[in-house]
Amino acid sequence: MNENELAQIVSRVVQEKLCPAEITEMTLALAKRLAARVEEKAKEMGVNPVVAVSNTGARPVLVECTDDSYIASYDVALNKAYTVVALKMPTKTLKTLAQPNEPLYGIQFTNGGQIVIFGGGVPLVHNGKIIGGLGVSGGSEEQDTALADFGGAVLEEEIKCL
Amino acid sequence: MNENELAQIVSRVVQEKLCPAEITEMTLALAKRLAARVEEKAKEMGVNPVVAVSNTGARPVLVECTDDSYIASYDVALNKAYTVVALKMPTKTLKTLAQPNEPLYGIQFTNGGQIVIFGGGVPLVHNGKIIGGLGVSGGSEEQDTALADFGGAVLEEEIKCL
Amino acid sequence: MNENELAQIVSRVVQEKLCPAEITEMTLALAKRLAARVEEKAKEMGVNPVVAVSNTGARPVLVECTDDSYIASYDVALNKAYTVVALKMPTKTLKTLAQPNEPLYGIQFTNGGQIVIFGGGVPLVHNGKIIGGLGVSGGSEEQDTALADFGGAVLEEEIKCL
Amino acid sequence: MNENELAQIVSRVVQEKLCPAEITEMTLALAKRLAARVEEKAKEMGVNPVVAVSNTGARPVLVECTDDSYIASYDVALNKAYTVVALKMPTKTLKTLAQPNEPLYGIQFTNGGQIVIFGGGVPLVHNGKIIGGLGVSGGSEEQDTALADFGGAVLEEEIKCL
Repeated sequence: MNENELAQIVSRVVQEKLCPAEITEMTLALAKRLAARVEEKAKEMGVNPVVAVSNTGARPVLVECTDDSYIASYDVALNKAYTVVALKMPTKTLKTLAQPNEPLYGIQFTNGGQIVIFGGGVPLVHNGKIIGGLGVSGGSEEQDTALADFGGAVLEEEIKCL
Repeated sequence: MNENELAQIVSRVVQEKLCPAEITEMTLALAKRLAARVEEKAKEMGVNPVVAVSNTGARPVLVECTDDSYIASYDVALNKAYTVVALKMPTKTLKTLAQPNEPLYGIQFTNGGQIVIFGGGVPLVHNGKIIGGLGVSGGSEEQDTALADFGGAVLEEEIKCL
Repeated sequence: MNENELAQIVSRVVQEKLCPAEITEMTLALAKRLAARVEEKAKEMGVNPVVAVSNTGARPVLVECTDDSYIASYDVALNKAYTVVALKMPTKTLKTLAQPNEPLYGIQFTNGGQIVIFGGGVPLVHNGKIIGGLGVSGGSEEQDTALADFGGAVLEEEIKCL
Repeated sequence: MNENELAQIVSRVVQEKLCPAEITEMTLALAKRLAARVEEKAKEMGVNPVVAVSNTGARPVLVECTDDSYIASYDVALNKAYTVVALKMPTKTLKTLAQPNEPLYGIQFTNGGQIVIFGGGVPLVHNGKIIGGLGVSGGSEEQDTALADFGGAVLEEEIKCL
C-alpha cells in the first residue's frame, strides 16, 4: 500500500464519520460559517446586522454583533433564534398568526418576552430535521427576512465533510 | 519653517479636524444644559416632565424628575432615551412601525420592556453621528414629542468647543 | 413707600412662604444643588460618582452620572437612594445588620434587588424628618460613605430661602 | 516646504497619534480574533467554554458557545463581560470585595443579576483605556480565570493597525 492509497482510505473513513447525514445538532463551527455568509450578504446590502444561531434546545450557540449594529438588535436576533426553534416556524409565519384576532394573538406575551413576531428568523433544517435556528436583526423587516432566508438557503453549502 | 512653527500648524489642523468634531459622546455637562433647556420649555407649556439623557451605549447619563411629574414617567423617559439610541430612530417613528400589521409589530415585547413605541424620544445627532438620546415623559404625547424635538433642535446651541 | 422698603417687604413675604420649616419633600432644585456639592467634593477626592437623590416615596428625583463613572454605579446609587428612605437608615448601618447571622440577613433578597447593604447612602433629614435620600456610588466604600455623609451634612446649607 | 508637503506631514503626524491609539472601542473583528485565541487555549486545557466579549458600553459584541459547553455558562460569560466593564475590574478582584463583611458585600444583588463575583472576567485594556471586556465560563474557576487572563494578555497581539 502506497501513500496515495492510504490517504484515500483515511479520507473515506473520515468522510463516513463526518458526513452530512450525521449532523443533527448545530455546532459552533457551523454557526460561525453560517454567520459569516449572512454577514457577507448583509455587507453587500449595506446592513449591519446582529446574527444569532441557536441549537435544537433553542439555546444560543453564537451571537455576532457587527460594528454599528443596533443595540436593541442583540435581544431581537437572539429571541428570533429562540422563537424559530421553540415554535418550529419562521418568524414571518408567526407574524400573521400573532396579529390581533388571529389564532396566536397573545403568543408574544407568554414566554417572558422571548417570542418575536416579525420577519428575520428561520429554523435551520437539514435532512428534514430542525438542527437549529437563525435570527437576523438590523435592517428593515424585508432585509432581515431576506438575510434569514438566505442563511437558511445556504445551510447545505456550509455543511461539508471535512 | 522651523520645528516650532510646524508643530503649531499641525496642532491647529488637528484642532480644526477634531473640534467640535471631537464631541462623539454625551457628557454630564452637556446633558445638564440640554435638560435645562427642555425643562424651561416645558414650564412655558405647563408640563412637568421627567427628562432623561443617554449616551452612545444607551446607558443613562442624567435623569431629572421635575416637581409633580408622574412617578411612571421615570421609567418611560429613561426607556425612551434607551430606545432612541438602541434603535437609532425617534420613538414617534417607531410608533408607526410597531402597530399591528406593520413591520415591527412586536418589537415592544422583545427587549425586556425597554422599548417605548410612542413619541417623546429622539436620538441626539451631532456631525451626522448619534452622540446620545433624549427621552421626555410627562405631558400628552404631542407635548412630549414637541419637547423631545425641541431638545434635539437646540443640541447644537448647547455644544460648545471648550 | 420707596423702592427699598418695597423690596424688603417682598423679600420677607417670600421668606415666610419658602422658609426651611416648610420643606418636607425633596424638590428637583434642591436635589440639583445637593448633587452639585457632592460632585464638587468628589472631584477634589478624584472620584467620578453617580449621585442619586430620592424623595419621601423612595422614588428618584435626580440621577447624575459623572463622566467616566462606572456603568454599574447607576443601579447602585439609585438603589442606595431607595434603600435609605425605604428602610430609614444609612446603608452603612444596614451593612452590619445584613451580614450572615445578623438580624436582617436576607433583607438584600426581599425587595427585587433594590436593597443596598454597603456604605454610600444616607437619609436626608430636615427638622427631624426624612425629606429624601442620597445615594453615591463610584469610589471605594469609604469614599462613597464619606461623600454621602458630606451630602447629608451640607443639606441645611443648600436649603435656603430664596 | 509647499502646501502638499505640509499636508503630508500633518497627515503622518495625525496618523502616528491616532494609530493604533485610535482603537478605543471593541470591534467584531477583534472580538473574533480574541475569542479564537481563548478557545484554542481552552482546547489545550480540555475545557469547553462560553466566551463573551463586550464593548465600552458593557454591551455584548460576540458570544461563542463551544460544543458541549454548559447551558448556564451563556449567562455567566455574558454577565462577566458586563461586570468587568461596568465595574472596571477583573471579576476575581470583585470576588474578594463581595465576600461577607467586605466593602462590596451585596453588590451581587443590586444590578439585576448581572454582577458576577468569581473569576473568569477581565477588562480589555489598550493604551491605558478599557476598550471592552472578556468573560469566560465553562471550566473550574481557576481555569476560567486563567483563560480570561490569557485573553487579556494576548489582546495586544490581536490589535493590529489596519
